[in-house]
Amino acid sequence: MGQREADRTLSQAIDWIIPIAGIAAVLFAIYLARWVIAQDQGTQAMQDVAATIYEGAVAFIRRQYVTIAVLALFASVIIGAVIAVVNTPEVSDTDINGVQLGMYTAFAFLVGAACSMASGIIGMFISVKANLRTAAAARHSLVGAVQVAMRGGAVSGFLVVALSLLGVYGIFALFGGFDNPAQAPFLIVGFGFGASFVALFAQLGGGIYTKAADVGSDLVGKVEAGIPEDDPRNAGVIADLVGDNVGDCAGRGADLFESTAAENIGAMILGVAVYFIALASGWPNPAAWIFFPLVVRGFGLIGTIISVAFFIKGKEDEDPMKILNRGYWATTLFAVIGLAIATYFMMDTGAQSGTNGIPTWIWFFLAGCVGLVTSIAFVYITQYYTAGGWRPVRSIAEASKTGPATNIISGVSVGMETTLVTAIAIGIALLVSHWLGEQAGIVNDKGQNVGGIFGTAVATMGMLMTTAYILAMDTFGPITDNAGGIAEFSKAEGNAREITDRLDAVGNTTKALTKGYAIASAALAAFLLFSAYIDRINNILGHQGKALMNAVNLADVQVFVAALIASMLVYFFSSLAIRAVGTTAQSIIVEVRRQFREMPGIMDYTQRPDYARVVDITTAAALKQMILPGAVAVATPILVGLLLGYQAVAGFLMVGTISGVMLATFFNNSGGAWDNAKKYVESGNLKDALGNVLGKKTDAHAAAVVGDTVGDPFKDTAGPSLHVLIKLIATITLVLAPLFIR
Amino acid sequence: MGQREADRTLSQAIDWIIPIAGIAAVLFAIYLARWVIAQDQGTQAMQDVAATIYEGAVAFIRRQYVTIAVLALFASVIIGAVIAVVNTPEVSDTDINGVQLGMYTAFAFLVGAACSMASGIIGMFISVKANLRTAAAARHSLVGAVQVAMRGGAVSGFLVVALSLLGVYGIFALFGGFDNPAQAPFLIVGFGFGASFVALFAQLGGGIYTKAADVGSDLVGKVEAGIPEDDPRNAGVIADLVGDNVGDCAGRGADLFESTAAENIGAMILGVAVYFIALASGWPNPAAWIFFPLVVRGFGLIGTIISVAFFIKGKEDEDPMKILNRGYWATTLFAVIGLAIATYFMMDTGAQSGTNGIPTWIWFFLAGCVGLVTSIAFVYITQYYTAGGWRPVRSIAEASKTGPATNIISGVSVGMETTLVTAIAIGIALLVSHWLGEQAGIVNDKGQNVGGIFGTAVATMGMLMTTAYILAMDTFGPITDNAGGIAEFSKAEGNAREITDRLDAVGNTTKALTKGYAIASAALAAFLLFSAYIDRINNILGHQGKALMNAVNLADVQVFVAALIASMLVYFFSSLAIRAVGTTAQSIIVEVRRQFREMPGIMDYTQRPDYARVVDITTAAALKQMILPGAVAVATPILVGLLLGYQAVAGFLMVGTISGVMLATFFNNSGGAWDNAKKYVESGNLKDALGNVLGKKTDAHAAAVVGDTVGDPFKDTAGPSLHVLIKLIATITLVLAPLFIR
Repeated sequence: MGQREADRTLSQAIDWIIPIAGIAAVLFAIYLARWVIAQDQGTQAMQDVAATIYEGAVAFIRRQYVTIAVLALFASVIIGAVIAVVNTPEVSDTDINGVQLGMYTAFAFLVGAACSMASGIIGMFISVKANLRTAAAARHSLVGAVQVAMRGGAVSGFLVVALSLLGVYGIFALFGGFDNPAQAPFLIVGFGFGASFVALFAQLGGGIYTKAADVGSDLVGKVEAGIPEDDPRNAGVIADLVGDNVGDCAGRGADLFESTAAENIGAMILGVAVYFIALASGWPNPAAWIFFPLVVRGFGLIGTIISVAFFIKGKEDEDPMKILNRGYWATTLFAVIGLAIATYFMMDTGAQSGTNGIPTWIWFFLAGCVGLVTSIAFVYITQYYTAGGWRPVRSIAEASKTGPATNIISGVSVGMETTLVTAIAIGIALLVSHWLGEQAGIVNDKGQNVGGIFGTAVATMGMLMTTAYILAMDTFGPITDNAGGIAEFSKAEGNAREITDRLDAVGNTTKALTKGYAIASAALAAFLLFSAYIDRINNILGHQGKALMNAVNLADVQVFVAALIASMLVYFFSSLAIRAVGTTAQSIIVEVRRQFREMPGIMDYTQRPDYARVVDITTAAALKQMILPGAVAVATPILVGLLLGYQAVAGFLMVGTISGVMLATFFNNSGGAWDNAKKYVESGNLKDALGNVLGKKTDAHAAAVVGDTVGDPFKDTAGPSLHVLIKLIATITLVLAPLFIR
Repeated sequence: MGQREADRTLSQAIDWIIPIAGIAAVLFAIYLARWVIAQDQGTQAMQDVAATIYEGAVAFIRRQYVTIAVLALFASVIIGAVIAVVNTPEVSDTDINGVQLGMYTAFAFLVGAACSMASGIIGMFISVKANLRTAAAARHSLVGAVQVAMRGGAVSGFLVVALSLLGVYGIFALFGGFDNPAQAPFLIVGFGFGASFVALFAQLGGGIYTKAADVGSDLVGKVEAGIPEDDPRNAGVIADLVGDNVGDCAGRGADLFESTAAENIGAMILGVAVYFIALASGWPNPAAWIFFPLVVRGFGLIGTIISVAFFIKGKEDEDPMKILNRGYWATTLFAVIGLAIATYFMMDTGAQSGTNGIPTWIWFFLAGCVGLVTSIAFVYITQYYTAGGWRPVRSIAEASKTGPATNIISGVSVGMETTLVTAIAIGIALLVSHWLGEQAGIVNDKGQNVGGIFGTAVATMGMLMTTAYILAMDTFGPITDNAGGIAEFSKAEGNAREITDRLDAVGNTTKALTKGYAIASAALAAFLLFSAYIDRINNILGHQGKALMNAVNLADVQVFVAALIASMLVYFFSSLAIRAVGTTAQSIIVEVRRQFREMPGIMDYTQRPDYARVVDITTAAALKQMILPGAVAVATPILVGLLLGYQAVAGFLMVGTISGVMLATFFNNSGGAWDNAKKYVESGNLKDALGNVLGKKTDAHAAAVVGDTVGDPFKDTAGPSLHVLIKLIATITLVLAPLFIR
């Protein structure tokens, strides 16, 4: 290992950015959390509501994470044991045996699971604190409320990304990554699987909870009892507010934690191929190609810290979306600078240079920029399709005039249409970044240009540099949604409700943006993991002296059937998730009805509904309902691998990823568009042939409400769960790859 | 060509079954048509309505097919020219040059297009005759009405299958197939493309027309004017009845014509590989392996003729579904016998025998039975998911109690769930028939076992042996639907409307069955064509001395992007098809509203609505709206091939097929389930908690109607159009394969 010192000379300095950025982000998150908690908490009435939400959220999260922790422990033992038994030789120049590999994998799995759980819990904890402070600030100032909500959201954003970075870095160091950089990435794949595993159940449980509470309490309150949304007489209303926190905050946090972890690990594995070329070619700093993803993420974090600290400011009457956008553009700008520094110092190919005399680092820098541009593209594409004012949402609102059926048909048509730009944007990002990477001219000893695939990895890194900021904007959504509920519930003074309504509308947009971003990053990360899977299979086949899997015979009937099952899985999984929402909502409806019946004082405010009981019932039902879809998602790829073999798994992964991305795009965007079509009608933008406004309490509005309700489980349960599913099938097969070779 | 005589000795006798069966089926269809036309035509009032429907249907079909004919002529010239210019050497021992190949392909394309058009037109023509006679017979007898409707449907069924068989056989003979059996299959691929091309536009135009007329006239009649369905005061009602004929009859006829043609050609191309092995091994009858698909189809036709002639009989009070099922089982039984004869006499491997001493023909006979079993499985699976009485439809009806939103959510969940059994059934059929084929032990000079893929081809043949009968059952649906409309419209005496209602309910089931059958056969046929595409690419690569495409690198970014685009295409195409229905329905609504406004006498029956004008407007709008989705479907695979190359096209085909099958399954089954959930409510099967029936005019019924309306464009426009799309992308890439190699 005399190479070690040589490896680290140049990159030593820049590698330090990883722990520094990670720790800085944690410290900054602590600072923000303390700042948020120190803000004004408003009236006693507001505090009472907030406390009730807090209790419910903590109760759910506790029960959910205990369940998940048990499942994760169980899974880690099985994975470790299975890998120990299979005992497949694979990694180069290593003396690790099967038992050790099993233990490493199980340990990494647990660390990944724990980090994912921690980021979910802490993020949720701070947002149930921030909602009250946002409502309190909204009594006086719009900008003040924006700042509280955004800083509250940023706590989640920073912790998720920092924990992912520090987790991968720490376990990499622990597994001897600095001594043997080519081996460690294969040892830490368990970390990604652990993160996926937790994310799946967190997103499923939270997603089922939030939409069941929403749909259930709306149906029984608005439709049956005829009382408004967020009315304190509705026993389900607290469960609904709790749902915003456990579904949107905790769920999306786990989702993006998984994306960043998966991308880091996938990119490091692909970096191993370049590392060997660098060693053979005598480039100054071979190990830099493996550390690179972590360094880039570090720069992304530092840029986001600066943006959040200095750029989320505005004038009192400014559009809140403009304030958030300003911060986003600043984050992107700092990301470009960080990317330039990282590529310039780390991608040193010595005497060898890229195509046309343009240095290697320039090509990869441009590939990274492709990722950043893709991220921006998705932000605007999602806005076009799901925000009012443009053709898609307007067409759904217009279709509401002829009733709920045409509203639904129109929304389905719009949702399916959005797959076009999504596929084209992802396709262009992959093709262009691959082409840029090829120009770097990195060729292995078999004459294959491996720069192309590394280019797509760098693009994914570029895209994920802004994750912390995007996540902050996302968490802004449920915080302001909750703040509105608190203001309504506690009858807050001033124009608090008006301000929170404005913020809520912005929050709807930022939530939709994040989903667009999450699905694009899931697609790119899954493509990396898919390539990493093939690398790993070939490593094992090479060690067993078998022919490599350079290509897969698509006409092979087993590959075709595996692909068919993959495409089916995304539909069947969605079916289970959507049905789980319906089943859980039914149990809420039954309970709220019972309370109305048995406690007649509720309607004239002389009796207080038993909110806690509804929260309890929802919690128990949601946790029960998340098991089946979760088990199907975990079991299917394993069964396919065992029954049909490793080539079939490759087909499964490709088709599962693609089908999942397309179906999730449909779910997310149709749901978002229906939601905003309803808001479009409520804002009085829809007019009949004579120019009369068709607003609330018209048939058109009722039709728009139907669309919104249908969209709820689409965009907040099935869609986001599919993001997680896509990455889960990739990490699960990457970890268990040795099992599929016979 | 001294081989010729040897080739034909043994198979000569059995080959004659092809023209004999084809001509017998045509003659039998003529006999049935004459029989139907000779039946009682009922009262003058009935004849008037029927004449109006007839006029509208003929007007639409004429305009539609003129448009399609122009498009097809245009396309044939381009295809011929392109292939002539590309001029790729490929087929073995041939002296055909590029210009000749271009002319052959263009000619085959035109013959395929013409046969497809003819079968659509004739089928539609006879069903608009049969509807009146069915209504007339329903005044006296249930069994009588069943017989008229079923024989009318059988005319379509026989003509579609016979024209496909005679078309492929004729063009095969014309292109020298008996002299050079290894070359002809590659020359006739244009036939399949022509059939697909016509089927796409026939299905799209008809599907848009039928559902736009249905949705549009329901919305303006039932919802706005408050008059019942099929009420003569609704100016859109004739357009609705016309739609049943042009959408369901002509569309499905074109769809299954395409399936049979595609399967014939795909199987013959795969047979070429076995042919060469048979030549080299000196088996008695090498050419039989190429003729086999046509012979099997011939036996299927003969069995169906016997069944229709002798087994569609019943007692007066018998369940009509039982009568139809009896015929179906008889057809299946005759198919098994025909399959045994064909495999026994044609699959003679001389001294060589299959695995374990079991002769080759037994293995392929069993593979064919797998196809027949799959066909039966789909008939029952579809019944479970879309017929009332079982859990899926009941759960949708129950969900209607809480309004349209929960009805829709429940229907989406059920529709997505149906992908599970669909994928598993298709997967098992492919794996088992492949395994059976492998046991036959047919190995080529590279040591590859090609029997497996031929086994899946035989399974597809087995499945498609019953096509004529299935198609007859399908056409039974719109005939009885129309008969009901005629009875209602003309106020027919007796219990005619009751009988036609019973038949209509059966017709809904048979229409759903056919879609399940069509999608499964589309999946199998597309898999064959996909394998044939790879065979053809390798033929060309081999002649150019390039490396063969034995496998595709799935991690190749171009393959991945092509696959992504394929998955997107099925969503985007569906979005366009669904939106086309909405746009066309709007133009109907505007016109019917205008007539109500400007002709006040309509409501009190003193003025006759201008039915013809609505038919005209719908026709023009539907034909305009079919162009964009059609053009997208045709252009996308060509663009992918030109930009990303032939390997990417393989990924495109696989993922496009799979994604299309899954999405169509969702569309067909959710639509069918919603339709029958509405019928379940209307039949008084839904009860509230106290046991009161929630029937018509309740909120639950209104909610169920919303679901039914949403399902209309799903199951009758988007779903069936996807069947066609799947086969179109397969035939288009098969024909243009030479273009994609650079």
